[in-house]
Amino acid sequence: MTTIDDVARLAGVSTATVSRALRGLPTVSETTRTRVLLAAEQLDYTASPSASRLAGGKTGNVAVIVPRITPWFVGAVVEAAEEILQTAGYDLLLYNIGGREHARTRLLHKASLPKRVDAVMLVATPVRADDLATIASLALPGVTVSSGLVVPGWPSIRIDDRAAGRTAAEHLLSLGHRRIACVWGDLTGEFADPAHAERRHGYQEALRAAGISPDPRLGIETRADAEGGRSATERLIARGELPTAIFASCDEVAMGVVNGLRLAGIRVPQQVSVIGIDDHDLAVAFGLTTVAQPAAEQGRLAAGTLLGPLAGRARTEAELAPTILPTRLVVRDSTGPARED
Amino acid sequence: MTTIDDVARLAGVSTATVSRALRGLPTVSETTRTRVLLAAEQLDYTASPSASRLAGGKTGNVAVIVPRITPWFVGAVVEAAEEILQTAGYDLLLYNIGGREHARTRLLHKASLPKRVDAVMLVATPVRADDLATIASLALPGVTVSSGLVVPGWPSIRIDDRAAGRTAAEHLLSLGHRRIACVWGDLTGEFADPAHAERRHGYQEALRAAGISPDPRLGIETRADAEGGRSATERLIARGELPTAIFASCDEVAMGVVNGLRLAGIRVPQQVSVIGIDDHDLAVAFGLTTVAQPAAEQGRLAAGTLLGPLAGRARTEAELAPTILPTRLVVRDSTGPARED
Repeated sequence: MTTIDDVARLAGVSTATVSRALRGLPTVSETTRTRVLLAAEQLDYTASPSASRLAGGKTGNVAVIVPRITPWFVGAVVEAAEEILQTAGYDLLLYNIGGREHARTRLLHKASLPKRVDAVMLVATPVRADDLATIASLALPGVTVSSGLVVPGWPSIRIDDRAAGRTAAEHLLSLGHRRIACVWGDLTGEFADPAHAERRHGYQEALRAAGISPDPRLGIETRADAEGGRSATERLIARGELPTAIFASCDEVAMGVVNGLRLAGIRVPQQVSVIGIDDHDLAVAFGLTTVAQPAAEQGRLAAGTLLGPLAGRARTEAELAPTILPTRLVVRDSTGPARED
Repeated sequence: MTTIDDVARLAGVSTATVSRALRGLPTVSETTRTRVLLAAEQLDYTASPSASRLAGGKTGNVAVIVPRITPWFVGAVVEAAEEILQTAGYDLLLYNIGGREHARTRLLHKASLPKRVDAVMLVATPVRADDLATIASLALPGVTVSSGLVVPGWPSIRIDDRAAGRTAAEHLLSLGHRRIACVWGDLTGEFADPAHAERRHGYQEALRAAGISPDPRLGIETRADAEGGRSATERLIARGELPTAIFASCDEVAMGVVNGLRLAGIRVPQQVSVIGIDDHDLAVAFGLTTVAQPAAEQGRLAAGTLLGPLAGRARTEAELAPTILPTRLVVRDSTGPARED
């Protein structure tokens, strides 16, 4: 049976630090907390918050609300968050709202949610101005990951989606592309994922900064998956004027775009360059150029921000500040110099 | 507020049937149950088992145990299962054991599991002979999806992995291939996923039936993801004798194999054909030939088998019989006639 002493020894810290790290106290740096959690994970040590949980009438559960679980970003965030929560002794309740507006609204309004869980994590699930009162009425600690508006009292973990869109478009511009199409989507279903809209804004900003007015005929909204990318490409080709490059608002869409071009006999990148955003697990196998975002790290950080409130401690102002993680351009084989028409 | 009458009207059945379907009674056919669940889902109707739950001291939670959540098969099963469980009024507790043997064993031994959940679903998580007593001691209703041995008292939902491996190899044989490599893995981590081993056995059976003795130098075990496929291909090429076709035990590995060949300047399928198993969401974008398995359907069926026991009803003998779903060959662009050396 692994004890807290074993974890302290492996992590090279005191048992008091292990205890503080697992309770999410702010006196422990993020680096130390990660080291402790990795050591606990490696030794299969699980904290037992059961006693305090029972005393406080707590459930020991954290609700993780997602639009769908199969998109790469969502799966990677949930997988990493689950590891942190489990190590700290909490269970993860998964609510998959299927990308449907009414399911999203209902779940936030769900009267029983505070009876079922002690905290909430919203992943790629939009938060809008009219949700803020509803979320406040839950009276639960929470955190958002890539979910639009900042909720008062909840930290938000995300990338700068607009900057990521700019980075992607600037890479294409640097290769001499001027006629650059944009294919963007929402994660799935009825509600628009604000991240994709932001990435499109970034693309538009980069084009304007280069003196190019984004051509509406080169912009296509679609479903944010590979099939959406394929069908958008089909529509783009049918409009008659092939761009020299296509920016897709996520890698799954970008892979569908590459497929749509391939099916039409158009070579990538010799005739058309393609770039996505994410660095999906399969982007490397696809040879896809992309703007990488750290999905697992967002999940780990988001879960980490809940440990303090779960242990009954109020968050400090500093802990409530949004965390914006860096992205980076990863050049592979799907982008190249603009063809000369 | 949607009522049970609305659901009955949309599904074209009586309210009594809706009630029976949502409680998982065997008097309702699988077709009718699916129609009722889809209608309930569409109308955003959720059953409220809270009363009976409280009376019986139940948690209202179902544990879904997975090796990881990011592999395509696991995500698709969990997404579909969650929809059924949520519609029937149950919450899904996700336990991600990270593919680690000790985490798997510990969770099955977890003394608190029966206090946290009313039922268990094991997805792509091995069940072995020495687990059976442990699982029986949980005294919980359960179901396995693609998890090896049948647990007494639990239905198992799966495909015939050996037959799927045979189908893949037979497709390659029918194209004239004789030197066929096999790249297989486990889903991730320490424990071997029995499905991949079974698929390899199917490949070996098909070769032997065609009078070919599987060449051990053409067999490589690897990690069951795209990176595993790439590195296995690198090793295969380093051995000096390129096969004319490669069978990969799942699509993620197959995509990595295609990438490994591409990086070595080997054309697919002109020089080497590649086939996988799954029909991953991105297989079509990849142009990958594969043996398709219905992942979402396995998740829905598995969740459906839990509704009866969750409502306090014992399963019949017929309900305990394993369900083996059909697979089918999907020919795309990654396989073609064997090259002539």
